[in-house]
Amino acid sequence: MPREVAIVGAGMSSFGDLKRSAKSLFAEAFLEALQSVDKGLDPSAIQEAYIGNMGFGGGQIGNLAALMTEHTGMLHIPTRKVENACASSGYAFRDAFLAVKSGAVELALAGGVEVMNDVSDVRKRFWLGVSGDTEWERLAGLTFPGVYAMMAGRHMHEFGTTREQLAAVAVKNHANGARNPKAQFRKEITMEKALSGAMVAHPLTLYDCCGTTDGASGLILASKAVARSYTDAPVWVLGSGAASDHLAVHDRESMTRLDATAHAGRAAMREADVAPKDVRVAEVHDCFTIAEILALEDLGFAAKGEGGRFAAEGITARDGMFPVNPSGGLKAKGHPLGATGAAQVCEIFLQLRGEAGDRQVAGPEIGLTHNVGGSGATCAVHLFGR
Amino acid sequence: MPREVAIVGAGMSSFGDLKRSAKSLFAEAFLEALQSVDKGLDPSAIQEAYIGNMGFGGGQIGNLAALMTEHTGMLHIPTRKVENACASSGYAFRDAFLAVKSGAVELALAGGVEVMNDVSDVRKRFWLGVSGDTEWERLAGLTFPGVYAMMAGRHMHEFGTTREQLAAVAVKNHANGARNPKAQFRKEITMEKALSGAMVAHPLTLYDCCGTTDGASGLILASKAVARSYTDAPVWVLGSGAASDHLAVHDRESMTRLDATAHAGRAAMREADVAPKDVRVAEVHDCFTIAEILALEDLGFAAKGEGGRFAAEGITARDGMFPVNPSGGLKAKGHPLGATGAAQVCEIFLQLRGEAGDRQVAGPEIGLTHNVGGSGATCAVHLFGR
Repeated sequence: MPREVAIVGAGMSSFGDLKRSAKSLFAEAFLEALQSVDKGLDPSAIQEAYIGNMGFGGGQIGNLAALMTEHTGMLHIPTRKVENACASSGYAFRDAFLAVKSGAVELALAGGVEVMNDVSDVRKRFWLGVSGDTEWERLAGLTFPGVYAMMAGRHMHEFGTTREQLAAVAVKNHANGARNPKAQFRKEITMEKALSGAMVAHPLTLYDCCGTTDGASGLILASKAVARSYTDAPVWVLGSGAASDHLAVHDRESMTRLDATAHAGRAAMREADVAPKDVRVAEVHDCFTIAEILALEDLGFAAKGEGGRFAAEGITARDGMFPVNPSGGLKAKGHPLGATGAAQVCEIFLQLRGEAGDRQVAGPEIGLTHNVGGSGATCAVHLFGR
Repeated sequence: MPREVAIVGAGMSSFGDLKRSAKSLFAEAFLEALQSVDKGLDPSAIQEAYIGNMGFGGGQIGNLAALMTEHTGMLHIPTRKVENACASSGYAFRDAFLAVKSGAVELALAGGVEVMNDVSDVRKRFWLGVSGDTEWERLAGLTFPGVYAMMAGRHMHEFGTTREQLAAVAVKNHANGARNPKAQFRKEITMEKALSGAMVAHPLTLYDCCGTTDGASGLILASKAVARSYTDAPVWVLGSGAASDHLAVHDRESMTRLDATAHAGRAAMREADVAPKDVRVAEVHDCFTIAEILALEDLGFAAKGEGGRFAAEGITARDGMFPVNPSGGLKAKGHPLGATGAAQVCEIFLQLRGEAGDRQVAGPEIGLTHNVGGSGATCAVHLFGR
């Protein structure tokens, strides 16, 4: 397993309906990342930055990345915004990884930020329209919950997946989120509550859908040559895989498989030389409950059609055989679009170092993150180890 | 001089007030890039893509990069949008360079696309407001020409730079653009015409300002290991430098110097191990005539305050000692924001290979590109050689 690039610091802001500015959220995440570097690190030592952000909901700031790095004391470094809808900071992380791997820099920042709640409720709905295929699905009146509802319906039809299995994902992720002080929704929900939520797009109820979240995340990557001068407990990047697909679901081969996930997962596992069975904790992209089920299947953790039983049977619970989304996932931790991919890495960083507090899972050696843009148009998968 | 990464193909669409779609423009540029690969290349061989785009002027498409690569036959590859205002594809190029340099991929695409003219004239003005500092300069009513006008005024005050020297940049770049079949403005202008243009922001007239342009660009990068299997005339990337600065001019040390340019230029020249005197042709970011003068100074081609005489004395003319912007530059070729950085590289690719037709300069060995985001918040500089 390659161990050329490590994470030496990780942080995230609180996630929630905060209506705070992008600068404020990003600074909170970055400061926590800096403070997590055991042996200390000055912001001016960072040589390159990649910031994930989607940024349609007001703001309309060009050069947002430069604004973030200027504000947090990283003046004059190369910095750029990376945008792939909800996979923005998964790709920002990949690009920071490649920059360090190339030898061009020893220390890089990958992060993300999104402010989604500083607009009216009417305008918030537009967030749902610009992540998927805007040429044809939007024409047909499909919003984002509608696309995933179609996938869920088809999965139920083909494989017998049930409403209860979907709801079990929500119940599990809320139970995890209740233990995460940074989560947007810090309360457990019962199966009855999950099933009786207001219908959003059949068969998905309110509790099958993630919220609208403000938040930020930041990760400090270091080369092998310098990593141990910053920490005795680096978390190594074992593999990076990324892929893309048709934006519109109707162009794809299957409604119940995300090929971008499958390609990205295989590429990451090939680089890391690990198999799905070696992965002991994962943060996957559960923007809707069906998305977690698809991820388990498309990453090879479950056979196709079998993903539904994983949460329902407790396999993916915090104390199960294969904990998934111990942070609460997008569902309960929250989903600030451009910040999500790097926030997933924050959780795996904590879990692998045994620093996840009340939500720590039992001694994982290898962890995975899975970040999806749109309804599967882009995907980034990363593998991590001690 | 490092020769690890080469450009093996380059293309751009026509530039102008075209109102064509992003997909159409990008496909035109990409097809030309493919066709320029002497020994042939199938789109499916490309392994990673970086697409520069700013994209505020309508559209509002998430995952734009995936849409572009899907449309041009590069299904399933890792792809992302890179945004740094007008320096978007300069950074997209840097990131594609780092990806190949890292060894992760052998073939990568760097490109850019921008559609600016498919909105009303009133809305077009908003393009001017989102590239600079949107927190304070916009509050003060400063648009983009206003910021550069202040720099020009200060440069005139400190160094005695004249209106005629500014106008000489426009006259030169129009003369070059007149020979470029892809340019937006293909006509020569006289000094009298340049000086008598409508005042936009004192001292800048219409002819001191670039236009509003639709266009796209694409470059195919290859590792040293595979470059010669695609072409016998690779153009090598000798150095890549990038930097950032305060977004707001009032936060900077000087009104007459872009520190991002200075930092990026030094980094690129250090990596390439070349001095300014070694560079024999350059495409610099002349969004306004004063910007070309600042670039010459900040990159070390002219002493501070001396940049004004370069165009006026013919030094930077196509047949001068040091040709600058033989393509016509942003001024005459056009400036489709997210496509500009990669389009500059297209021109240097042609010039170094001796394929620039009527605007070919005399046998340059080393060329430079200089791409600025905002009024200097971000900058990417690259050096190229045969």
